[in-house]
Amino acid sequence: MKSKIRLGILGGGGDSLIGIVHRIASSMHDSYSIIGGVFNPDYSENLKFAKEIGLDETRVYEDYDKMIEQELKLDESERMQVVSILTPNFLHYPMAKKLLENNFSVICEKPMTTTYKEAQDLEQIYKSKKLTFAVTYTYTGYPMIRQMKEMIREGVIGNVQRVDLQYYQGWINPIIHDSDKRSETWRLQPDKSGISCCIGDIGTHAFDMLEYVTGMEVQELLSDLNYVYDDNPMDVDGTILIRFSDKIKGVIRASQIATGEENCFTVAIYGRKGGLKWQQENPNYLNHLSDSKPLQILKPGHDYNSNFSKISVKLPPGHPEGMFDSMANIYNGVAREIRGEKEFDGEYPTLNDGLRGMLFIEKAVESHNNGNTWVKLN
Amino acid sequence: MKSKIRLGILGGGGDSLIGIVHRIASSMHDSYSIIGGVFNPDYSENLKFAKEIGLDETRVYEDYDKMIEQELKLDESERMQVVSILTPNFLHYPMAKKLLENNFSVICEKPMTTTYKEAQDLEQIYKSKKLTFAVTYTYTGYPMIRQMKEMIREGVIGNVQRVDLQYYQGWINPIIHDSDKRSETWRLQPDKSGISCCIGDIGTHAFDMLEYVTGMEVQELLSDLNYVYDDNPMDVDGTILIRFSDKIKGVIRASQIATGEENCFTVAIYGRKGGLKWQQENPNYLNHLSDSKPLQILKPGHDYNSNFSKISVKLPPGHPEGMFDSMANIYNGVAREIRGEKEFDGEYPTLNDGLRGMLFIEKAVESHNNGNTWVKLN
Amino acid sequence: MKSKIRLGILGGGGDSLIGIVHRIASSMHDSYSIIGGVFNPDYSENLKFAKEIGLDETRVYEDYDKMIEQELKLDESERMQVVSILTPNFLHYPMAKKLLENNFSVICEKPMTTTYKEAQDLEQIYKSKKLTFAVTYTYTGYPMIRQMKEMIREGVIGNVQRVDLQYYQGWINPIIHDSDKRSETWRLQPDKSGISCCIGDIGTHAFDMLEYVTGMEVQELLSDLNYVYDDNPMDVDGTILIRFSDKIKGVIRASQIATGEENCFTVAIYGRKGGLKWQQENPNYLNHLSDSKPLQILKPGHDYNSNFSKISVKLPPGHPEGMFDSMANIYNGVAREIRGEKEFDGEYPTLNDGLRGMLFIEKAVESHNNGNTWVKLN
Amino acid sequence: MKSKIRLGILGGGGDSLIGIVHRIASSMHDSYSIIGGVFNPDYSENLKFAKEIGLDETRVYEDYDKMIEQELKLDESERMQVVSILTPNFLHYPMAKKLLENNFSVICEKPMTTTYKEAQDLEQIYKSKKLTFAVTYTYTGYPMIRQMKEMIREGVIGNVQRVDLQYYQGWINPIIHDSDKRSETWRLQPDKSGISCCIGDIGTHAFDMLEYVTGMEVQELLSDLNYVYDDNPMDVDGTILIRFSDKIKGVIRASQIATGEENCFTVAIYGRKGGLKWQQENPNYLNHLSDSKPLQILKPGHDYNSNFSKISVKLPPGHPEGMFDSMANIYNGVAREIRGEKEFDGEYPTLNDGLRGMLFIEKAVESHNNGNTWVKLN
Repeated sequence: MKSKIRLGILGGGGDSLIGIVHRIASSMHDSYSIIGGVFNPDYSENLKFAKEIGLDETRVYEDYDKMIEQELKLDESERMQVVSILTPNFLHYPMAKKLLENNFSVICEKPMTTTYKEAQDLEQIYKSKKLTFAVTYTYTGYPMIRQMKEMIREGVIGNVQRVDLQYYQGWINPIIHDSDKRSETWRLQPDKSGISCCIGDIGTHAFDMLEYVTGMEVQELLSDLNYVYDDNPMDVDGTILIRFSDKIKGVIRASQIATGEENCFTVAIYGRKGGLKWQQENPNYLNHLSDSKPLQILKPGHDYNSNFSKISVKLPPGHPEGMFDSMANIYNGVAREIRGEKEFDGEYPTLNDGLRGMLFIEKAVESHNNGNTWVKLN
Repeated sequence: MKSKIRLGILGGGGDSLIGIVHRIASSMHDSYSIIGGVFNPDYSENLKFAKEIGLDETRVYEDYDKMIEQELKLDESERMQVVSILTPNFLHYPMAKKLLENNFSVICEKPMTTTYKEAQDLEQIYKSKKLTFAVTYTYTGYPMIRQMKEMIREGVIGNVQRVDLQYYQGWINPIIHDSDKRSETWRLQPDKSGISCCIGDIGTHAFDMLEYVTGMEVQELLSDLNYVYDDNPMDVDGTILIRFSDKIKGVIRASQIATGEENCFTVAIYGRKGGLKWQQENPNYLNHLSDSKPLQILKPGHDYNSNFSKISVKLPPGHPEGMFDSMANIYNGVAREIRGEKEFDGEYPTLNDGLRGMLFIEKAVESHNNGNTWVKLN
Repeated sequence: MKSKIRLGILGGGGDSLIGIVHRIASSMHDSYSIIGGVFNPDYSENLKFAKEIGLDETRVYEDYDKMIEQELKLDESERMQVVSILTPNFLHYPMAKKLLENNFSVICEKPMTTTYKEAQDLEQIYKSKKLTFAVTYTYTGYPMIRQMKEMIREGVIGNVQRVDLQYYQGWINPIIHDSDKRSETWRLQPDKSGISCCIGDIGTHAFDMLEYVTGMEVQELLSDLNYVYDDNPMDVDGTILIRFSDKIKGVIRASQIATGEENCFTVAIYGRKGGLKWQQENPNYLNHLSDSKPLQILKPGHDYNSNFSKISVKLPPGHPEGMFDSMANIYNGVAREIRGEKEFDGEYPTLNDGLRGMLFIEKAVESHNNGNTWVKLN
Repeated sequence: MKSKIRLGILGGGGDSLIGIVHRIASSMHDSYSIIGGVFNPDYSENLKFAKEIGLDETRVYEDYDKMIEQELKLDESERMQVVSILTPNFLHYPMAKKLLENNFSVICEKPMTTTYKEAQDLEQIYKSKKLTFAVTYTYTGYPMIRQMKEMIREGVIGNVQRVDLQYYQGWINPIIHDSDKRSETWRLQPDKSGISCCIGDIGTHAFDMLEYVTGMEVQELLSDLNYVYDDNPMDVDGTILIRFSDKIKGVIRASQIATGEENCFTVAIYGRKGGLKWQQENPNYLNHLSDSKPLQILKPGHDYNSNFSKISVKLPPGHPEGMFDSMANIYNGVAREIRGEKEFDGEYPTLNDGLRGMLFIEKAVESHNNGNTWVKLN
């Protein structure tokens, strides 16, 4: 019989959307117990929230320093094993750093840090430890993405020869065209959001997904971003040419001014023998194209799916799962890692995914600032 | 601050699919604490399972009689408030009956009972109590179904004039054509499954949905069932003509031999001014047709949706929710009822839905056995 | 080198929609020359129209009697070989009869006649002749319908076990609820339209398609029609239970009050091994379902298609053809029959299709008038 | 009463696909009579083919020089008015030039010439004449593309801010990876195909469409092409960054190695107030997105459509038209121009479209060869 993994949480209190996503995700496979944490910088709010989600006060702390200090005093059989970091971005790095240094495994929201340098620093610490570190690129948890990854790995579509990813949203549209709103939105303020808005927030999902499903590393990129107004310091749209090599190319397209789009993230990978296409808004369908056979539409939970895809589904075919289930698969991957049950490459996005993501953001901005020239990613 | 509702569970232990659905659903809105129950008829399995899902032994009972007896000894502030019944169908009635008699609210899996008479008996008891009784017709929890219900209620499509519901699956296909398998499957044995297989299991979902979204009661039906083999005592397919009146008609089509279909449940309601169409396998889209305007596709979480639909969504537009979320909305409806917060008609399917469902099943079989003649439902 | 087939046309002048459909269809495979005919009952309009479509006056006649009389005087090498009948329904029978008696082949719009008796009469005459007689059930010309027919014939989905066809339109909706309009519309006047509106006009397409793709004859039906108003003598909606046998069943659903539907004709056939689904509004996709394999979507023009499907396409894959092309395939089938090149069963709908269609209409109305009872079709 | 326009044809004999497309297109609106032409360089083949399509020998000529010479001898009331050029690409320029010089209107297949310089030369001649010159960018004839153009013109989506066009095919995939095949295919030989394969053949459709629907001129581009093999001199894939201005950007993506894609041409234009999306393989649907309202799906033939869209449809809603109909709309536009009936901007693609297309191809190759740098289009 398995005992549950003891989980701490930093951030995600109140009406936080990401808070509920992580709580539900951690509960879906009956693998975690939320033990405590710091849900809110205000201590009384923190305590109130903890009570709301059914925790007593014992392990609700004033701040993460105190949390680490107190948890270390507990016996290892009682101590938090994993801590999820759901705070604003600039806190990811100091929190993750201290947690790793004190031997806690970490589940960190994306972006992992605010600079590539910080990410490299985390990597250094991580290398010297035997810990689990996950970065929650949520969409990698979808069963049909995992099916896609396995099919590419097994050579079903042959060598990759063209890639095309799109992540289109329209949410910033009513903000960007209003000079008051665009100057006030924290997402468009570099000191709060880092060096990129669109590429940093959603382009990076596409980049991670591309390397995740293909199992290959992007070598070079050339980007053209759009800031729309001269007084706006942050990109809200961009197209990024991608090269795996001089002969294997493609494109990542990201926009927050694609008016009317909700969360239109699409992935298309073409190889010599076939193609695979997927859309986040209809995540339970995977299109498999071929030169000579009818289009095949794969769905989750079938015998024809890979084992990795099959362990990522809880309901029978035809009963749709959604984004909570995708995140839950990542949590389950971490649990399986911790318990030594991990079977598949890619059960959760790793620190390396977080590191590559930061590199991508910095290089995309650099290429644009250089006048849209090629920059290397290694 | 809200305290959580104390939930007991009967059944759903081990690898039970329905067990995990109810546990996840009860946790998604942070409204319930699972206190205990009887997860398994075997007591040691029961205890083992309880431990797996993080419960101590205190309130894990040998059987439901003991559970009720012991819970009644507790102070009302500690006692289970709601009990979910997830056992095989024949146990629904005795359990629900005793729970109601002892003043526990009930969340009961469908079908509510095995006969209409039992259902009427429950209704009698329920009427004399101030309790909440929900029957988990899961699909009524989808936000776009609730949107449909509200739009019909508000007259957006005008008076209903044609209805068409389909529930097609193919899962019984490999069983029905194999004489050994079809004689061994419990689903095809009347003593285990009641008087109907296809209509009882899925046709009844369609019937409930029809009355749910239209807010109208079906008056008459005429059914033609298919047993496929002479030695098979249970329907696996059927078409049921529906009349709300002599001028408002339609059809429910249900099949378990629609080879290759997974869980293809569709709802189409046409009124004088427009039509509304929905598919369970793509639950986040609602098609609104009209004579004179372009087809409109509504999605969850938008300002243009009804309030009832909006409270049924946790994520922003474009982030798909699925069947767990639908069931969670029903659990949330029960919680809101218990807390006196219920605002909308239809936040959970009621005992009356369960009662009508049993009537529908019995009348569908009766019509078929009468040689496909009209029978009244009142 | 092939000479073109000499085609005469009765009806279809002016802005007639069906006129342009037949003219374009006859020209698409370069197989026919339109020689003349009677396009309009008014002779001067007739002549004017003939000139507009590029015909000289020589073989534009006052009426069909004169046409037949004059054409018979011509040498067989000059005489019209085929005559298309595009007139109002009540003229189909006398025209077709006289044409057959005088040894002209016929392409007749549906419904072939206004009564089953007339249809039987035509059949008698036809049997004694060596002529070609086509009834233009347009939709049977679509390449993916032909693909479906071939796949069923070859056993790809195994023995048929469930059938489901829908033909939903909403066009009569604004008429039916307006007492003036509904009393004035010729479609709702039995003396002009025959005994049925909805079943006669569109239900019959579904019935023909069902027998066309399955290659089987419906044995019995039970229908429930809807007239919506007591003063309306014609059905505008209906559901028809279908039996091929006591074990092979299904349903045809037809409506003209499905508000907002345009021409939503769908065909779903399920067999023991799989299912096939098609929609008229997206005619270039054929869904092939199976228990154990991913859904396959077949499209026209591929090597994987049957030869019959392949000869029904003019453009390469991905270049959509539409309804004119479908009708053109039927014209081409007639041309191939006349030239002795016909290879496949079903290259055009035959007189027998027309005959069965009339039987279906009469029986559907009879069943309804009998109080929704089973009636045999043979 | 309208007399038909006298049409000559150069090329398109035998089994030529483009031949049948133009013949059908010219016939669909009863506006043209094919008078004669040169269908084949071999005179006996030419005569044979003419007979097959119902022409007598009188005006079937040995070559285009003879054709022009002889036609000029005829009275203007008998002379060809328009000549369609369907020959291999290198003949477009000399034929079009001579036709214009001799006062014939021209319908020319795309690409209009083989170099931008030739295109400029044609423009010079054209400017001094009162003739009609159309370039058959077929897809601009679709009714929903015309609807899109009108909606953008009327400001329905506000100022354009992001554009994204894709034209993906997979047909060259089996050729490109086979060294024999790729060296033998004429499409991959610059002396036969010009300087570009993928961009020249399909990228140019996307470029023309972009300028057509937006009514705006692209200012700059940066392209990255893929030749896949070092010994292959022709691009088979490319991504082209597009700028209308420094603040209005987008991308054209084209590929012939998108394995399994057929003719997947998509157009997405986002403005401040909404977005419009269209797919060539499902041409009868136009998606209209907005921030605040449900997605709307427009279809052809409705009252809600623009007049330009409405005149581009022959059948009622729900009866799909296809690619022949699209080309027929272009032919109809030319006919309306010649008859002085043209009402709308864009009834046929003009010589200027052909000119811009050649400029685009040359600049796309230039940008790539410069190391993926920005080049201006003016």
